Amino acid sequence: MSDTIGPEIQRLIELVGKLPGFGPRSARRAVLHMLKKREQLLGPLADALNEAGAKIVDCPVCGNYDTVSPCSVCRQPGRKDALICVVEDVSDLWAMERAKAFDGRYHVLGGVLSAIDGIGPDELNIAALISRVEAGGIEEVVLALDATTDGQTTAAYIADRLPPSAVNVTRLAHGVPVGGDIDHLDDGTLATALRLRRGMG
Amino acid sequence: MSDTIGPEIQRLIELVGKLPGFGPRSARRAVLHMLKKREQLLGPLADALNEAGAKIVDCPVCGNYDTVSPCSVCRQPGRKDALICVVEDVSDLWAMERAKAFDGRYHVLGGVLSAIDGIGPDELNIAALISRVEAGGIEEVVLALDATTDGQTTAAYIADRLPPSAVNVTRLAHGVPVGGDIDHLDDGTLATALRLRRGMG
Repeated sequence: MSDTIGPEIQRLIELVGKLPGFGPRSARRAVLHMLKKREQLLGPLADALNEAGAKIVDCPVCGNYDTVSPCSVCRQPGRKDALICVVEDVSDLWAMERAKAFDGRYHVLGGVLSAIDGIGPDELNIAALISRVEAGGIEEVVLALDATTDGQTTAAYIADRLPPSAVNVTRLAHGVPVGGDIDHLDDGTLATALRLRRGMG
Repeated sequence: MSDTIGPEIQRLIELVGKLPGFGPRSARRAVLHMLKKREQLLGPLADALNEAGAKIVDCPVCGNYDTVSPCSVCRQPGRKDALICVVEDVSDLWAMERAKAFDGRYHVLGGVLSAIDGIGPDELNIAALISRVEAGGIEEVVLALDATTDGQTTAAYIADRLPPSAVNVTRLAHGVPVGGDIDHLDDGTLATALRLRRGMG
């Protein structure tokens, strides 16, 4: 193998294998596909990566990725400046934007607290969030973190550190997912949805 | 979505989504991962793609991908020049090399005949194979093509077109895969393995 596949291809397979969802086998397959379509795929992908690498920066305000700084979400007029949605990652920010259900600003933590992975408050973008709130003008902080132990630990940690009376700290509602089957739902969600049941009116 | 994700990132997601095994969702995840690890992953990957795009060429003899032309397999001393293994794709050449069971030269077709996909003999690297054999010095051509209808149709087509008496045309053996469970095997393979059973001696 090593003497019949050149080092340039080996290196490419190794790097593609670091992407989420890839193993050595699927990385080989993806690299072969790119090598087969050098004009249509490999070249444009190299250009797009170069451009992204050169232009994209972390937004200094919210932590989003964009080519402008502050990012286009932070700049967008018509959003409520007094409302901040705290998310774990940029992927969650994108998911919120796809849902078109939020018209405030964001704050990306860059992860959640995790004893197992050794991620403490200093590894996350928490100090900047507290500064944003302390600077004033914020009425509500929505902690839109995963409903996992780490996500909820992080939410509790942040809620504790935000200046109390100054700001209303909320979290996403729990319940039956829209379009979800009752009989496929886990017991915890079902129990929560039942406890938090609402009038039909 | 479109107004909050910049065009550079959109383009990157679109291109990554064209890789085998990726959908829009996993492409987004891979791109976010790259954007998060710009120094360690996005930059090196862009460099590796640029280098591959600039250096790698199709071997004019066998169709393999390499930075040298003819490729390093075609150049490697000690291989039997009289023995050619015909494979569908470079991935099959790599698989044969990993198995370390073949010491001849290769010929990559770049696909198989397929009525559904509209791939005829002219789309494949078949004429070059016939020229190689007609040039003389070849004793055996092993058709290592998939045991699918298209693979076997292609094998039969090539066998018909090679100069008859001049060269011995063979194909890979069918049978129980090494390490394979009998009770998980499909009926066709099992029937073939039984029909082609061999003495224990």
